[in-house]
Amino acid sequence: MKARTVAFQGEVGAFSEAAAKRFFGKRASAVPKKSFDDVFAAVDKRTSECGIVPIENSLYGSIHQTYDLLQEYDLNIIGEIKLRVVHALLVNKGVRMNDIRYIYSHPQALGQCEQFLRTMKNCEVVAAYDTAGSARMIKAEHRNDAAAIAGVDAGRIYGLAALKTGIENDHMNFTRFIVVSRQRRIAVSNAKTSIILSMKNIPGALFKALSVFALRDIDLFKIESRPLTGKSKEPWQYLFYIDFKGSIRDEACRHALDHLREIALYLKILGSYPIGKTAGGGAA
Amino acid sequence: MKARTVAFQGEVGAFSEAAAKRFFGKRASAVPKKSFDDVFAAVDKRTSECGIVPIENSLYGSIHQTYDLLQEYDLNIIGEIKLRVVHALLVNKGVRMNDIRYIYSHPQALGQCEQFLRTMKNCEVVAAYDTAGSARMIKAEHRNDAAAIAGVDAGRIYGLAALKTGIENDHMNFTRFIVVSRQRRIAVSNAKTSIILSMKNIPGALFKALSVFALRDIDLFKIESRPLTGKSKEPWQYLFYIDFKGSIRDEACRHALDHLREIALYLKILGSYPIGKTAGGGAA
Repeated sequence: MKARTVAFQGEVGAFSEAAAKRFFGKRASAVPKKSFDDVFAAVDKRTSECGIVPIENSLYGSIHQTYDLLQEYDLNIIGEIKLRVVHALLVNKGVRMNDIRYIYSHPQALGQCEQFLRTMKNCEVVAAYDTAGSARMIKAEHRNDAAAIAGVDAGRIYGLAALKTGIENDHMNFTRFIVVSRQRRIAVSNAKTSIILSMKNIPGALFKALSVFALRDIDLFKIESRPLTGKSKEPWQYLFYIDFKGSIRDEACRHALDHLREIALYLKILGSYPIGKTAGGGAA
Repeated sequence: MKARTVAFQGEVGAFSEAAAKRFFGKRASAVPKKSFDDVFAAVDKRTSECGIVPIENSLYGSIHQTYDLLQEYDLNIIGEIKLRVVHALLVNKGVRMNDIRYIYSHPQALGQCEQFLRTMKNCEVVAAYDTAGSARMIKAEHRNDAAAIAGVDAGRIYGLAALKTGIENDHMNFTRFIVVSRQRRIAVSNAKTSIILSMKNIPGALFKALSVFALRDIDLFKIESRPLTGKSKEPWQYLFYIDFKGSIRDEACRHALDHLREIALYLKILGSYPIGKTAGGGAA
């Protein structure tokens, strides 16, 4: 797979940058963006060829904003990668555990380290723009009263010491990233397909939607619901995001999607792409 | 419904406090707590009789932390209420639009006002502990370079001016709150039941789970998936939170749950409670 530029959210040293490097190897240069929206916009406006964004963490759950952007933009998912996430408590050299009064990180990372944070009794936990950015700030401002939670990569890049590593609640901490592109590429072998669906507001609607897969022995990997907003005037209606095994080139999947079109209000196919490998140790 | 003390997350003037007042009227005194976890802990340790927490916003979606705490603690859901949420841009008196360099609020509120925030070009958006707390801070620190996003109630309580109200992306902005208690109360008429479920990792597992409801014409309100962590050593497995119409006292629901027990790995019943009303204008 060839790609010159890959947009990611965060600063140099962010987990998303590591995911881009693992996915594309040396074939790509990763371009930092401020927000997930900026990543999607860069790909949409052809500033970057691809974008890589986290969609789900094995402990913390789905990243709603990514789901919403997949609906908002018309990009294709062309791949995924799962990365083992190890968080470290990073400080400027010489700072000890007892000196720490503030701990900065991205809310996702703070959530993943919640149990550790509960043990840091006298610290204020501060939500920041991202993990690597917190590390950079601690360094730039020579803070000796603060720590950042970020990856060891970020610590190395910004010259910080890791007082403690592996502070996540559970070492089965993986983040799944998706790669988006304007270009459509349809994988056929070892593929996964992602769709967005809304059903008529009738009893058993979701059951009927899932039956199109179950009746054809198509495995589901994931189902996620998000509020249906804008077009609908009624609150408490939902969009469903479904990941299933197979490619839209497979006969069974094609029939399932045709069947779904008969009973759905709305159906958007996000892409058929190779099931992702897990990088960075551990198997998923 | 009698209750002396109701724990809520946030500071005086928070939306959760308004929800408590709407739900219990004058029969209860609302007690502020720092975190959702503190709300659950206060009820669990009998410091408060009930707790009220947001579980879902009609625009922003589910509040993961509440879902996870329902699994972590053994409390019962005894009620729900839906509140229309109107956000205001609050400032100290005399501060004008052009003076604002920083905007503080809870990440949920920031998400709900994302479109408005995109128009505030030269402002730094800062995630804070809660909406009312941001309003209190702006006031206490006499900030003339900052605004808080919170409800008009919070503005009134802390003596701030609302430069703009109704800045949420969409006026169909409702938050659904649940009331939790150690006590079990089972509603029978106009009831909703909430359960947590995990299925064996077999093809069509979720389809089979939903069939127990569909085959008995039981309507589903909501399905939410969360990562299954801890007990399971494999990532990418899920717990399902299902809200369905009816009470565990109804015959059809009882049979559905018995059927579910045959095929589920794990089933927890969170409660059967009256379907909530919508307060604060607008109908849901």
